[in-house]
Amino acid sequence: MKYWIVLLFTLWYGLSFSQKDSLFIRDIYTEALSNGECYDQLNHLCKKIGHRLAGSESAARAMEWGKNTMQGYGFDSVYIQPVSVPQWQRGPKEECFYKLNGTEVRPVAVALGGSVGSKDPITSKVIEVKSIQALKDFPDEAVRGKIVFFNKAMDPLLINTGAAYGGAWDIRGHGPSEASRKGAAACIIRSLTLADDAYAHTGSTSYDADITPIPAAALSSVDARALSKALQQNPELELSLHLQCSLKERIIQGNVIGELRGTEFPEKYIVVGGHLDSWDIGEGAHDDGTGVTQSIEVGRIFRALNYQPRHTLRVVLFMNEEFGNDGGETYADSAKVRSEEHIAAIESDGGGFTPQGFSLQGTDAHLAELKEWARYFEPYQLFHFKSGWSGVDIGPLRSDSTALYGLVVDSQRYFDFHHSNNDVFENVNKREHTLGAAAMASLVYLIDQKKD
Amino acid sequence: MKYWIVLLFTLWYGLSFSQKDSLFIRDIYTEALSNGECYDQLNHLCKKIGHRLAGSESAARAMEWGKNTMQGYGFDSVYIQPVSVPQWQRGPKEECFYKLNGTEVRPVAVALGGSVGSKDPITSKVIEVKSIQALKDFPDEAVRGKIVFFNKAMDPLLINTGAAYGGAWDIRGHGPSEASRKGAAACIIRSLTLADDAYAHTGSTSYDADITPIPAAALSSVDARALSKALQQNPELELSLHLQCSLKERIIQGNVIGELRGTEFPEKYIVVGGHLDSWDIGEGAHDDGTGVTQSIEVGRIFRALNYQPRHTLRVVLFMNEEFGNDGGETYADSAKVRSEEHIAAIESDGGGFTPQGFSLQGTDAHLAELKEWARYFEPYQLFHFKSGWSGVDIGPLRSDSTALYGLVVDSQRYFDFHHSNNDVFENVNKREHTLGAAAMASLVYLIDQKKD
Repeated sequence: MKYWIVLLFTLWYGLSFSQKDSLFIRDIYTEALSNGECYDQLNHLCKKIGHRLAGSESAARAMEWGKNTMQGYGFDSVYIQPVSVPQWQRGPKEECFYKLNGTEVRPVAVALGGSVGSKDPITSKVIEVKSIQALKDFPDEAVRGKIVFFNKAMDPLLINTGAAYGGAWDIRGHGPSEASRKGAAACIIRSLTLADDAYAHTGSTSYDADITPIPAAALSSVDARALSKALQQNPELELSLHLQCSLKERIIQGNVIGELRGTEFPEKYIVVGGHLDSWDIGEGAHDDGTGVTQSIEVGRIFRALNYQPRHTLRVVLFMNEEFGNDGGETYADSAKVRSEEHIAAIESDGGGFTPQGFSLQGTDAHLAELKEWARYFEPYQLFHFKSGWSGVDIGPLRSDSTALYGLVVDSQRYFDFHHSNNDVFENVNKREHTLGAAAMASLVYLIDQKKD
Repeated sequence: MKYWIVLLFTLWYGLSFSQKDSLFIRDIYTEALSNGECYDQLNHLCKKIGHRLAGSESAARAMEWGKNTMQGYGFDSVYIQPVSVPQWQRGPKEECFYKLNGTEVRPVAVALGGSVGSKDPITSKVIEVKSIQALKDFPDEAVRGKIVFFNKAMDPLLINTGAAYGGAWDIRGHGPSEASRKGAAACIIRSLTLADDAYAHTGSTSYDADITPIPAAALSSVDARALSKALQQNPELELSLHLQCSLKERIIQGNVIGELRGTEFPEKYIVVGGHLDSWDIGEGAHDDGTGVTQSIEVGRIFRALNYQPRHTLRVVLFMNEEFGNDGGETYADSAKVRSEEHIAAIESDGGGFTPQGFSLQGTDAHLAELKEWARYFEPYQLFHFKSGWSGVDIGPLRSDSTALYGLVVDSQRYFDFHHSNNDVFENVNKREHTLGAAAMASLVYLIDQKKD
């Protein structure tokens, strides 16, 4: 008889424990969907501050906003962690044109982030290639002094658009250096996007130490196609590119950190974050205003539900993911120096789209845990709980004792907006954005409850 | 030894068969994502034809377009199946206003589909209720001659927004009749939407046979909130509503049907479809231009891949789902009269959003089959294979021998657009729309291959 009592108690306890968690997660979703503020916060960030490249004044204003917002929500402490950031500036002039049959054509073009400028316009013939390898196959003398045009599209056949981005990324990251190595005067690329439109998409490039940096810009997909067609008509056409970008001295900005102090394990940390900086066009709405505001919302939800975590929750608004990951590196370095134990970090940097689940960089044990927790997310239509990419900012925290999670969202539209003038508040849907915050808060809660 | 050979052969055959299907489904996705035309077709339908209420001239033009499009794709036969449809007309005037503190306020309002009009404006005090039950609880004399205002919101806590729509639908479907039964002069409702904006959403209402029809309109969510607030300030305020809607005699339009003739079972049918008609505002993009163009795209993909189905595939563009389901009823009646055996029907009528899977109305055996097929869709991130709603148009085909499937898509944004001026082409994403067509073609292919 006693045996049965113990068994029943165990069953009841197991059930009630899991029920308690299910109910709290329901409370999280109810709070987010009834009283959520992350969408209004995103509106403020996009419309009152706008884009916020690291090193810029608007990035400094965004830091102030982040600090004030978390203080306003009653976080236990809010502070700035100083981060040294570069100051890349686009410059006043950004001009690209060519003539076809006597008519001037002005493609929509933007300098790549980090590009050098030139005093005078660079006007030269264009050599079009589909890949870096194709460029390498050319004799140097065929390239020397010309403008290299990498016309490589993201692969539309990949269902995960992040993979398609990864597959074409090399032309932006390495294209300009490789073009310079062959003696080119400048470099243009087709924008990394799956959309067929007239938005040009910037993003970081970097120059190898052994080459002479040359100006580099991206054309919209429509303009890249038009240029390719024009080159078929007239392979001798000359394109003129004039960028006035420059890199100033580094300055100190910072990660904005808000804490809810842990009740049982105050010296053990769970990080939830996104990056506060954005590129200097558009409004940085999906990249990564949504992640930043969702992260703050996690703390707001906990406050609203009177949930004080057992571990210390740090909401981190990282500074300068886009052009060097200074915020992420600084945060991880500091954690190491202070011997801070991080049990988990969660990043949202895939846009504010309908959440699908979480991907994990961690151990097999972490993965088994995540798969076990998947059942809590079933009522909210999350289904993706697998190993995979987490996030750039939290990446440097990686260790066997720290599980890194990335919020996985529907990726189909992301690259239509990414790094372009089209990444604006209007392209974020309130429910999709808010559901992501609720999913993140739920995962933080589970980690906080289930781990010591 | 012979035993092992048979076993190995069986394994090889089983494997290769499944591989063959996987490869063909990959071909379907490749064709859709590389050469897909459904998005361009949708552009034409939305921009060149526009909204297309059953009975209207534009609905007739849409039928012509559907017929020409399928003929252009080389379908084996394309024809019109005559359908008797009502002709409801909005009329030239649609006016709603009230005065608050001497200032005239003009809410964004649209007549509900099927509403009667009135010769003169109806001006009366307003009685606000949250539900039909709340209205019933009022004494008749408190309602008589007034305008009943059903201010009931869709429940934002439901993750499936279709369920939230279903939960609030009664105020549109039954509210006007119930208001009339209490002696009201007119009825207004809060639009059925989860968005907080100034779009008013129409949709069908119907009048019970035993009441006097009264004019009925929907206000935008923002305007409903404003009116509610105004009523708190001045419960005596008078609202004026003037609709000039009318119902003309029924006319004959039709379902547009395109066939790919079955090679093995030409007398057994698989239907794939959506509805060609829309409400008379916006462009009927997500409702249901996307479903119609996806359905045609299934046939186009099969033609492009030289796939002639074993069963006869019927692409059906149903006429008048919105105001009576005449097309669906007519199609099913005809199938019954002709003793046509339908093994399956698939409908897309949830908008052109990222597909998540299929829901089934069918037998346990059908469900087991669907769950078995789920593995073919894993590479394409489809995860929802459950019992559930299929579609209004195909509903009348229901029988134990006909499996009805609904394309399940991400539902978060749908009701932001549904039945409003906001349901336009620009709010459809090409990849999301196209992936739905590929999913539908894949399911049709599997049914066609796996069933006799």
